[in-house]
Amino acid sequence: MRHTTLGLSALTLLCAASVHASTSANPQYRNTDNPNLADKGEGTYPIPYKMPVVKEVTDALHRIRAYLESTTPTRIIHKGTGAAVTDLKKPIKEAIFEPSKGDYGIMVYEMGVVHSGLLKVRAATQDARFTAMTERHLRFFAETMPYFKAQEEQFHLERANSFSRFLDPRSLDDSGSMCAALIRARFAKVGPDLDQMIQICGDWVANKQFRLADGTLARKRPQAVSLWADDMYMGIPALAELGHMTGDVRYFDDAVRNVLQMSQYMFNAQNNLYTHGWNENNPDAPRFYWARANGWAVLAMSDLLDVLPKSHPGYNQVLNQLRANLKGIAEQQSGQGLWHQMLDRHDSYLETSASAMFVYAIAHAVNQGWISPSTWGSIAQAGWAGLANRITNKGEIEGICVGTTFASDHVYYYHRPTSVEALHGYGPTLMAGAEIIQMLNNPAFNIEHKVRTYHYVPSNAAKTDYREHH
Amino acid sequence: MRHTTLGLSALTLLCAASVHASTSANPQYRNTDNPNLADKGEGTYPIPYKMPVVKEVTDALHRIRAYLESTTPTRIIHKGTGAAVTDLKKPIKEAIFEPSKGDYGIMVYEMGVVHSGLLKVRAATQDARFTAMTERHLRFFAETMPYFKAQEEQFHLERANSFSRFLDPRSLDDSGSMCAALIRARFAKVGPDLDQMIQICGDWVANKQFRLADGTLARKRPQAVSLWADDMYMGIPALAELGHMTGDVRYFDDAVRNVLQMSQYMFNAQNNLYTHGWNENNPDAPRFYWARANGWAVLAMSDLLDVLPKSHPGYNQVLNQLRANLKGIAEQQSGQGLWHQMLDRHDSYLETSASAMFVYAIAHAVNQGWISPSTWGSIAQAGWAGLANRITNKGEIEGICVGTTFASDHVYYYHRPTSVEALHGYGPTLMAGAEIIQMLNNPAFNIEHKVRTYHYVPSNAAKTDYREHH
Amino acid sequence: MRHTTLGLSALTLLCAASVHASTSANPQYRNTDNPNLADKGEGTYPIPYKMPVVKEVTDALHRIRAYLESTTPTRIIHKGTGAAVTDLKKPIKEAIFEPSKGDYGIMVYEMGVVHSGLLKVRAATQDARFTAMTERHLRFFAETMPYFKAQEEQFHLERANSFSRFLDPRSLDDSGSMCAALIRARFAKVGPDLDQMIQICGDWVANKQFRLADGTLARKRPQAVSLWADDMYMGIPALAELGHMTGDVRYFDDAVRNVLQMSQYMFNAQNNLYTHGWNENNPDAPRFYWARANGWAVLAMSDLLDVLPKSHPGYNQVLNQLRANLKGIAEQQSGQGLWHQMLDRHDSYLETSASAMFVYAIAHAVNQGWISPSTWGSIAQAGWAGLANRITNKGEIEGICVGTTFASDHVYYYHRPTSVEALHGYGPTLMAGAEIIQMLNNPAFNIEHKVRTYHYVPSNAAKTDYREHH
Repeated sequence: MRHTTLGLSALTLLCAASVHASTSANPQYRNTDNPNLADKGEGTYPIPYKMPVVKEVTDALHRIRAYLESTTPTRIIHKGTGAAVTDLKKPIKEAIFEPSKGDYGIMVYEMGVVHSGLLKVRAATQDARFTAMTERHLRFFAETMPYFKAQEEQFHLERANSFSRFLDPRSLDDSGSMCAALIRARFAKVGPDLDQMIQICGDWVANKQFRLADGTLARKRPQAVSLWADDMYMGIPALAELGHMTGDVRYFDDAVRNVLQMSQYMFNAQNNLYTHGWNENNPDAPRFYWARANGWAVLAMSDLLDVLPKSHPGYNQVLNQLRANLKGIAEQQSGQGLWHQMLDRHDSYLETSASAMFVYAIAHAVNQGWISPSTWGSIAQAGWAGLANRITNKGEIEGICVGTTFASDHVYYYHRPTSVEALHGYGPTLMAGAEIIQMLNNPAFNIEHKVRTYHYVPSNAAKTDYREHH
Repeated sequence: MRHTTLGLSALTLLCAASVHASTSANPQYRNTDNPNLADKGEGTYPIPYKMPVVKEVTDALHRIRAYLESTTPTRIIHKGTGAAVTDLKKPIKEAIFEPSKGDYGIMVYEMGVVHSGLLKVRAATQDARFTAMTERHLRFFAETMPYFKAQEEQFHLERANSFSRFLDPRSLDDSGSMCAALIRARFAKVGPDLDQMIQICGDWVANKQFRLADGTLARKRPQAVSLWADDMYMGIPALAELGHMTGDVRYFDDAVRNVLQMSQYMFNAQNNLYTHGWNENNPDAPRFYWARANGWAVLAMSDLLDVLPKSHPGYNQVLNQLRANLKGIAEQQSGQGLWHQMLDRHDSYLETSASAMFVYAIAHAVNQGWISPSTWGSIAQAGWAGLANRITNKGEIEGICVGTTFASDHVYYYHRPTSVEALHGYGPTLMAGAEIIQMLNNPAFNIEHKVRTYHYVPSNAAKTDYREHH
Repeated sequence: MRHTTLGLSALTLLCAASVHASTSANPQYRNTDNPNLADKGEGTYPIPYKMPVVKEVTDALHRIRAYLESTTPTRIIHKGTGAAVTDLKKPIKEAIFEPSKGDYGIMVYEMGVVHSGLLKVRAATQDARFTAMTERHLRFFAETMPYFKAQEEQFHLERANSFSRFLDPRSLDDSGSMCAALIRARFAKVGPDLDQMIQICGDWVANKQFRLADGTLARKRPQAVSLWADDMYMGIPALAELGHMTGDVRYFDDAVRNVLQMSQYMFNAQNNLYTHGWNENNPDAPRFYWARANGWAVLAMSDLLDVLPKSHPGYNQVLNQLRANLKGIAEQQSGQGLWHQMLDRHDSYLETSASAMFVYAIAHAVNQGWISPSTWGSIAQAGWAGLANRITNKGEIEGICVGTTFASDHVYYYHRPTSVEALHGYGPTLMAGAEIIQMLNNPAFNIEHKVRTYHYVPSNAAKTDYREHH
């Protein structure tokens, strides 16, 4: 008999070890910034708790980029045979975008975030390889839009038309995220001019989406009149970029108004978190602090502040609202750097996409000077340590909650599956990495590794003093 | 060697799987309402998360009913020999109620809740089998009261007299719950007229129970002057039913006053929960959010609203207090549908009796229109899924915390044992099931199964709209 | 084959059992105060939940005392050879305090707490053995100060001089805790007169420590201007004892002012807890409720109230602040009696030193009449049950978090290692034990063991009444 057999006590030990892991998640990393291996004051961590290194961050982002490149074809195929459709003059009913092996749609709102992320990584690294995919996708859109338009006129496929989000937009999900990405690509001179697409999605967000009487962007589901915190991102960045592109202040006004009104309906000032959504027929409902909804909220406010003129009367209100939400979020960070699926429920799983959004939003706010590097820098860094641990060698990202509706019970939320095929986490992780690189390069503060942890000290501050130490 | 031996890595895997169970409790159910087994967006649940079915609910309630029938004898026996006592003319000292195998007293306050629950199930199902036990118990009371009264006059057994709660009541526990049940049975014409017993217990609750100077129902333990949130249920429903029966508004006034004053002493408006109790000698004490105490509170308020005239000046105050408490409770619901022994302590065990009270109170409030079906319907439904999972094939109910005093430390509360012999959970589960049946049959809203979860949509509302979906 | 092999299902069971332990920590104790082993209403506890016994507490304190005695040499040695240095007339550069095997410095702030603890145990037990070590240490200081002073004048060793904390104090850590201990020893007539050392450390705390412009005791790390809640203890007790010793009210004024101002900067009135620290450059930062920081805070306030004249205008403010903090702390007590490393994070580990501080502060406040024995007595008792379980037969104390800086992320705090060599928990455990003994002997209340738990009932109160029980 070759294989191991174990006595009862050995078994118990093994299990006990695993059980220990259930609360502290299998601690195994020692901080490599501390060269003293005998230091009894040094912790052992479940994640690689150490100073991030630009090259390591960049390498991780390249893995993600390469993975997404390889899994997002831009071809038209016959949906029955899978054969390439090359004749773009005469539309056929069966023509569709070639599906991704990884189930990553090239026109979904999550891909809008990916493009925005790639643009940010390129800006942080000055490496044009990061936007090659954006360029390819956008060129494909420009080339194939007339074909699918003709297909629609002839066959009336509605949602089954691969281009339907831009031929017949029906929701903020169809429009806002990609709209903001297209405008950003245009500013960055990446890809062809997609003015026609920008007009369509911009018009939907600004003028056609269902709203409350007071102008708040709304949906007709799950109740007849509902708000989703997610829609802060699905609407506000597009409005902000429209203002940015056109200079028309009414877009900024609308974006600011939506931040403030969405917050009035869904923000809990007691814990500084957003509940996932709000139904007009039950305005004082129990609240569900779904992490990703808060992620969309901070991305939306951050994106708006990026382009909102400081002179706009709503600037400080938006900034204060972002600060408040970030504070609530930071206070919920887990001992593993990531955040829980339900932010205030520490027995729910650690979710990647929201964590990435928070790391980005905090690091970006630090880099922009919206919040102090002191305290916040360490929080972003610890978050990145958790996040980096979820990026595989292959460039996949683990632990991302799949698409999730605005629901009304914790059983649903706690048990949403995670999948490397959930695109929601990819764009935010690219954004987070880009911003961490900029934080590491930021001359406005020094990152001190002292007494086994990290302190972000403003460069222009008086000196810290550790001379009393023994 | 036939049995399996495993290598180290296999063992580790096994343990890891079990560990995973420690936070998400061994997920194993797939929602059967979703026919698409390949749907990657569908969760896997630790409880049967699905639409409840009236027949399944009714079957579960029949199992409970049959189990209680079989374990609650109504006979007088000689406590030494166990022989039946049949001569009811000449009392003997040793005569007692035949004890239940399951330790379920037929005159305890918990049995009052069982009768109230059976009456509700009968009303929901129109099936008279559900009140056969109530009828049998009440008839037994009517028949044996003179016997035990004579026994007491002759032998002075005090607490050892099986009928002592009604011959010599000394507490709200002795009186209130059963009193309310007897009046309800009378309204429902179930069992004999027990006017004499109603007078006794009603007199105790209304006139003889120890109170604070301001009229709040109180106890002389554990401190000389203490309040128990449990006493909202031990007192208020009886007062409410006395008002209901007599039409005398002073009973309603007293009931309303007790809701409001108990809440002033014990309700925390920050988290919308009741602390278990309050001692006059330590009015600003640390708080213990014991689940069942909150369960008694919502039952009491709900029972009062059932009979309190809407024109009563306190009606809206009671309704608002119930709504506030339910909101706090709903926000603490676990990812397994049930609630924790200490509501705000998510590492304490999931407790059945309180969970049943919450499911009942929420579903009843939805059915009565006190709260919106939107949001609340799903919460009740998820709670029922957890609750139904605790009802065995035999009709026993698992996970019920045994009798628990008003204590002052978490070590005690966290480690209260659970037992299928704790009657506290049976009545509330019957009530919860009855109300879930009525919720499923309620024409005021439609239950939509959309995007893998449930939405309770008011029938008279504008239509929801999912047409944007791809 | 002799050793056991197990089938798959047996393995699963084993793991499941271990997993269960992860939330309820291997419950195994039955309350020995309940003689009825068949009592189904009795819980099973992870700690020995029972009435503490003076002799058992005293024995545990003797074990700690003996262990500390044996691990804290008071000798000068040559740091190269380890040989004793006996010629105290001519200093040599290599002379140092003989290091402790257990890494317990004899002049560190943690040892100040140990001496204060030993003095309290002696007062509670009237057993002079408890202060023998204090006497030995203090005598050693008196004898060797001139030697190390001469060494410093000759060799300028700075931090490497074993006596540097009193020759060249540079921080509150160097000064405050030992200063308070020295004054207390003087009042108790334990050891030689160390007036010279008291002048030095007192001068540092009162006059030389870096402060905010408003007088709040501050540090120049981790940011240029930072506050540490720890410094409430590192500063306030010394100021209080200086007032006590000199009668100069300005010391009391300074101590009171520091309680109130530290609280303004770092106390969260929503959850009644202190955040670990505060940076002037980020005043509204996310908060980290590190347990030990709150421990230092309650010790500081308690120590101040011990000597602050009741007529001082700040007396009631300090008392109310202590009460508020204790309430927040009590509400966070775990189901195992101890408190978590991060007070509000119930998935962080149970930490001993902070728990000891809390048990002391609560029991002391009960004994002083600052808070009611009702509720609070049980909380202290439950805490002691958890604490006693961490004292080994050898007198070591387990589960003490090592030295921890004011940091900015949960990853750091959650994973601080624990060590029996962390002295931080020894003094507080001695203090806690002393106060538990006094609580058990306190004639102001009776400790009732009723209905399987404990009730501290004021002696002068009206009687409790359990006569309604069946």
